[in-house]
Amino acid sequence: MTQQIRSFILVLAVTASCLGARSTAAAERPSRPNVIILFCDDLGYGDLTCYGHPTIRTPHLDRMAAEGVRFTQFYTAAAVCSPARASLLTGRYPPRHGTLGIYWHGLDTGMSVDEKTLAELLTKQGYSSKCIGKWHLGHDVEFLPQNRGFDSYFGVPYSNDMQIDPEMAFADDAVFRDGWSLEKVRELSFDGPIKPKRELVPLMADERVIEYPADQRELTRRYTEQATDFITSSEQKPFFLYVAYTMPHVPLFASKKFEGNSRSGLYGDTVEEIDWSVGEILDTLRSQGLDDNTFVFFTSDNGPWLTYRLDGGSQGLLRGGKFTTWEGGMRVPGIAWCPGTIKPAISSELATTMDLFTTSLHLASTPVPNDRVIDGVDLSDHLMAGGNSPREDFAYYRRDDLQAYRRGKWKIHLKVQPEKGGKPGAMLETPLLFDLERDPAEQYDLSKEHPEVVETLLEHAGTYRQL
Amino acid sequence: MTQQIRSFILVLAVTASCLGARSTAAAERPSRPNVIILFCDDLGYGDLTCYGHPTIRTPHLDRMAAEGVRFTQFYTAAAVCSPARASLLTGRYPPRHGTLGIYWHGLDTGMSVDEKTLAELLTKQGYSSKCIGKWHLGHDVEFLPQNRGFDSYFGVPYSNDMQIDPEMAFADDAVFRDGWSLEKVRELSFDGPIKPKRELVPLMADERVIEYPADQRELTRRYTEQATDFITSSEQKPFFLYVAYTMPHVPLFASKKFEGNSRSGLYGDTVEEIDWSVGEILDTLRSQGLDDNTFVFFTSDNGPWLTYRLDGGSQGLLRGGKFTTWEGGMRVPGIAWCPGTIKPAISSELATTMDLFTTSLHLASTPVPNDRVIDGVDLSDHLMAGGNSPREDFAYYRRDDLQAYRRGKWKIHLKVQPEKGGKPGAMLETPLLFDLERDPAEQYDLSKEHPEVVETLLEHAGTYRQL
Repeated sequence: MTQQIRSFILVLAVTASCLGARSTAAAERPSRPNVIILFCDDLGYGDLTCYGHPTIRTPHLDRMAAEGVRFTQFYTAAAVCSPARASLLTGRYPPRHGTLGIYWHGLDTGMSVDEKTLAELLTKQGYSSKCIGKWHLGHDVEFLPQNRGFDSYFGVPYSNDMQIDPEMAFADDAVFRDGWSLEKVRELSFDGPIKPKRELVPLMADERVIEYPADQRELTRRYTEQATDFITSSEQKPFFLYVAYTMPHVPLFASKKFEGNSRSGLYGDTVEEIDWSVGEILDTLRSQGLDDNTFVFFTSDNGPWLTYRLDGGSQGLLRGGKFTTWEGGMRVPGIAWCPGTIKPAISSELATTMDLFTTSLHLASTPVPNDRVIDGVDLSDHLMAGGNSPREDFAYYRRDDLQAYRRGKWKIHLKVQPEKGGKPGAMLETPLLFDLERDPAEQYDLSKEHPEVVETLLEHAGTYRQL
Repeated sequence: MTQQIRSFILVLAVTASCLGARSTAAAERPSRPNVIILFCDDLGYGDLTCYGHPTIRTPHLDRMAAEGVRFTQFYTAAAVCSPARASLLTGRYPPRHGTLGIYWHGLDTGMSVDEKTLAELLTKQGYSSKCIGKWHLGHDVEFLPQNRGFDSYFGVPYSNDMQIDPEMAFADDAVFRDGWSLEKVRELSFDGPIKPKRELVPLMADERVIEYPADQRELTRRYTEQATDFITSSEQKPFFLYVAYTMPHVPLFASKKFEGNSRSGLYGDTVEEIDWSVGEILDTLRSQGLDDNTFVFFTSDNGPWLTYRLDGGSQGLLRGGKFTTWEGGMRVPGIAWCPGTIKPAISSELATTMDLFTTSLHLASTPVPNDRVIDGVDLSDHLMAGGNSPREDFAYYRRDDLQAYRRGKWKIHLKVQPEKGGKPGAMLETPLLFDLERDPAEQYDLSKEHPEVVETLLEHAGTYRQL
């Protein structure tokens, strides 16, 4: 049976699963599965109980993992925010879509409008869609979620630490429009004449600022409310919901109910609030009879921001953090869920955020674009039938520079970065070689023992040098 | 309700649970619970799936953890073999029982005969008992398991890497007696006249050598067979079974069935074989109707031996390994199991191997010795009713030298060791201070921010300096 036929049968199986009506409401639902992507900001590989954190408690995510597939070798396509998000939504490596760095506040650019997002493709096929949370793919109008395929938006358009000059905000950001005057923004931005308030980020609904500065303590709670409302009100159409949590990116905030609750400080509080949020979303799916017809995936945009010390997360047993091509920068939690359809497992197969693009399209019986290269692979056979992941390799970029490359269990580093981020050194004469399945912490360079492996990987990596 | 009354009620509850006859065999069982301690050698905090290992698969231990209590802050009393074992069996810190270093092959001493072992105390109260696996508390006759309270013994008397001089073995070790000649031992020890075979350790049954050199590939399998046979044949008496696996201590060996099976090399194979073994033991308890009347605890003697690189284990997110008082040397996996009696949970409470001594005695309605200081605390209320652990602190010794001290979430280091082991530096002028619940990896010294905490901990630590 070819991979294509097999995938087709699986899509039929998913489609069929929703026909087993569990309630009148469920019986009236459309047959194509819903898709929900839950995307954290700077959550580390080691930050959840089910990934081994000793003191942060995540019972809802642990349950999601026990009922679904928990990936232990799942990657984000970039170790920093904007490119990671662009790759998730386009299924392409950063050098292909061109979003290489962060879109700073005030910058009037964003992810190329030539890119096709998952939202755009699904919406064209009849899906309703909503983007909730951090966008960070450009905040001028043309780059905002509603112009990139989403029906609606609720969230913070860039990073929550972008402490801004309100004059510049007002002048440069298209987000301040109806109902906002420069005087009002200025007044809200300063305690007294010169001392700027911290965390001056706007909260938006669609293309309008509805709160400034956003009350960050309430963001996770409000995102959750928006998400469950969206699910509950979706009736006729299948939907795509993208929830990009603002936490646990610094500055950290938790709502009153969660602040001071965890044994792991404010960082733990924010993760435990996200865990609660995921629980609410999955419970809503259950109560709506949508749990067996919704593909849910939980992951993170990159590893923990280690320079923030106790306010940063944990990469677990991995080496390095955010901004780096060490495993800790790019290997992240990854949990797939769709009870009855996805077969519970702990998966050590290779998979990436780009694969969520392709997998979601397959599940939605929507063709993958054929006018451009898509780097994502379809994981549905792996998730639903326990087959191997079709992914054979992974390229670790820093901007458009290929710094490391993995094939099977082997990884080579062409350049080496400081573990907490920063400029890499020069190209290594002999790449470092790690066996990631015996040595996930990248401690023991085996390049001298296995020069032939280095050579093979260098050959394969060649095709990724220039995309 | 006082702690004592509460504990008494809990003991009654355990005792009562066995009265609910599940089979005729179970109905005839004695009322006091059985105790099984499963003790690995050099297994690291991060080596099991349920503690976050990405590629080693431990489904039986994961199930045990899901059905029982998985501790995330569980300690062994020493970062090296012999003292760790002595503390487990006596409930006392190393400076109290005097076993401070390793009993090398050929050494004619062992753990002081004045110490009372858990086996001795339980046997006196009518328990049958068996020691299986690595002993390493002295291999002259007076120190062997049968003279330290166990009814019988099957295993390797010391470490599996103790490559010996057969002349010396024969001369010094009491283990070679009936049926062994110096010529025979010499012949078995060498490939040709001068090239010694590796891993020349004897396998013993009670006080006799039954195989030399022991076939290490078969040890885990044979230990398992011995354990399940012992359980199956126990009928009239409650029992205490101590299984001290030889693996995953180097040199690594797995049986044919497991060698090459894991994604994580030979190290992973040995851990996966231990996982299988634990599954066999728990299944035997289930099939005998003993699962709800047997307290089972799984743990390790110390952290991973990092200098062995790919043949050593993983300390997970912790810092340092075996031989050190960093967390990675002394914090180990700890899983308690007794379905129906122990309440399933993930516990972040403080607990240690010494507490297994005290807890086991409580469960067996056996008085804790009152003629000496016992450092263990009773965990039964925590395990069965979800109360807090009564343990407030933990002292980290290297031999009899107090190098670090933890109280609540805070840990001070008085001296600092290299992370892979070795001599510590001089006493620090200001101890390092870590908040282990926010910073389990011991990355961020907070001594400058919290001098008052350092002072309080130093005061408390004072009582542990001289035991």
